[in-house]
Amino acid sequence: MTKLKIAMCQMEVIDNKEKNLKKAEKMITESKSKGADIAILPEMFICPYENDKFIEYYESQDNSPTLKFISKIAKKLNIHILAGSIPEIVIDKKGNKKIYNTSFFFDEEGELLGFHRKLHLFDVDIKGKVYFKESDTLSPGDKITVIDSKLGKIGIAICFDIRFSEISTIMALKGAKILIFPGVFNLTTGPLHWKLLLQSRALDNQVFTVGVSQALNENQNYPAYGHSLISNPFGEVIIEANSKEELLITEIDLDEIVTVREELPVRKNKRNELYQLKF
Amino acid sequence: MTKLKIAMCQMEVIDNKEKNLKKAEKMITESKSKGADIAILPEMFICPYENDKFIEYYESQDNSPTLKFISKIAKKLNIHILAGSIPEIVIDKKGNKKIYNTSFFFDEEGELLGFHRKLHLFDVDIKGKVYFKESDTLSPGDKITVIDSKLGKIGIAICFDIRFSEISTIMALKGAKILIFPGVFNLTTGPLHWKLLLQSRALDNQVFTVGVSQALNENQNYPAYGHSLISNPFGEVIIEANSKEELLITEIDLDEIVTVREELPVRKNKRNELYQLKF
Repeated sequence: MTKLKIAMCQMEVIDNKEKNLKKAEKMITESKSKGADIAILPEMFICPYENDKFIEYYESQDNSPTLKFISKIAKKLNIHILAGSIPEIVIDKKGNKKIYNTSFFFDEEGELLGFHRKLHLFDVDIKGKVYFKESDTLSPGDKITVIDSKLGKIGIAICFDIRFSEISTIMALKGAKILIFPGVFNLTTGPLHWKLLLQSRALDNQVFTVGVSQALNENQNYPAYGHSLISNPFGEVIIEANSKEELLITEIDLDEIVTVREELPVRKNKRNELYQLKF
Repeated sequence: MTKLKIAMCQMEVIDNKEKNLKKAEKMITESKSKGADIAILPEMFICPYENDKFIEYYESQDNSPTLKFISKIAKKLNIHILAGSIPEIVIDKKGNKKIYNTSFFFDEEGELLGFHRKLHLFDVDIKGKVYFKESDTLSPGDKITVIDSKLGKIGIAICFDIRFSEISTIMALKGAKILIFPGVFNLTTGPLHWKLLLQSRALDNQVFTVGVSQALNENQNYPAYGHSLISNPFGEVIIEANSKEELLITEIDLDEIVTVREELPVRKNKRNELYQLKF
């Protein structure tokens, strides 16, 4: 399978889990009806992007209404779903609680194939523009994530993770042909960096990158930039949303990766005797 | 010294070494008269970018008319000069010849502070658009280059080197605040990748990047894209040429690096237990 159809569900998220899930279902259903093989939801698709809300909305992986709901849709519609992310609560044997920002990947039979816990927390303070400290509530994951599926190997990382080029390189070295980044960039860093990062990770690793954002909701404390997009392995944006709620569907051809790697042989010409990424 | 004035000499290069050197002298002289601390020349500023010309124009480091000429200008004008690159011939004791694509850095007293030999040769075959095989004539260098100077630590790499993100990261880890890339991107990869690469290396490493190209000369077999530019450590292009011959001068403030690294702390939040670049 070298061609596949990707649906990016750039949904507006509100402060109501049930309505967010209904919206997700509607967009995934439309994705399937338009022939998508995979539907992708944004980061924190069930709750506003706020520390207080992460605590209010968290679910445990073993007993998650959200994950059951998404799994059921995947099975019913026969479609892969990357469930952007949700706040995930984990309680260890000593009773210590940790909340992660976690993305879950379901196959078209509703089976959970794997998950990614955000590795790099969004602790940023751009004077007068953006302040956010995810580490006030969240804990970081500890694994770089590549999941094997019928659609091929898929790398998953979340939002701020994309700023750390190493993990994109590692996902590609592990065989991922598509790197998916659910994310919520803001109105400062979005226009400056979102597209640039997605294009450069695609170009440097000669893979497809997919960034799926929440839509802009001006009532949120942390309004999203939107602009969900896909870059091909040559670093070209092949489809891009604006800031509003939108379902974007496009077909990609994984064979383009083979062509680009032959034409611009950057991967095979690395000077491993001078530098090497250890992981 | 946190502020410095950088001159990018986007010169048109022709098939005449003497005239190219005169042009370089003229542009460096103008740079100095406008207050520049450093003047930067493009890759292969003495000869057309062609394998045959590399052989015709090469000089040895020990006895190079070009380097003597540039050193004299630096001293006379009291200005740092990064002499883009020239084809450099090295003959070992056994009489074996190697030609490198080498960039030379002179201080304002005309002293050679160091040099960089292009590490990654440009062997590219984009069907119907660009074919070039530098390795037909050139040999690759074997060192990543950071040179200490009165202007601070400067990282130097040449053109195709920029596609290998590892060396930019290493130059920054070694303390370089400015990464300079003399280069000659072409009319296919230039519009697609030149700016993207310079911006993303700046953003990922939170340093200034400077790309200095030859001007477009439509009579050349390998016409240059031009578009010399500087990106600040936030990944924003602060000055950019078009394709024509042009001298661009701008002041940068190295303190911006400190601010960006505080506001967006990507360097200190790397997960070194999960990945690490060895060099």
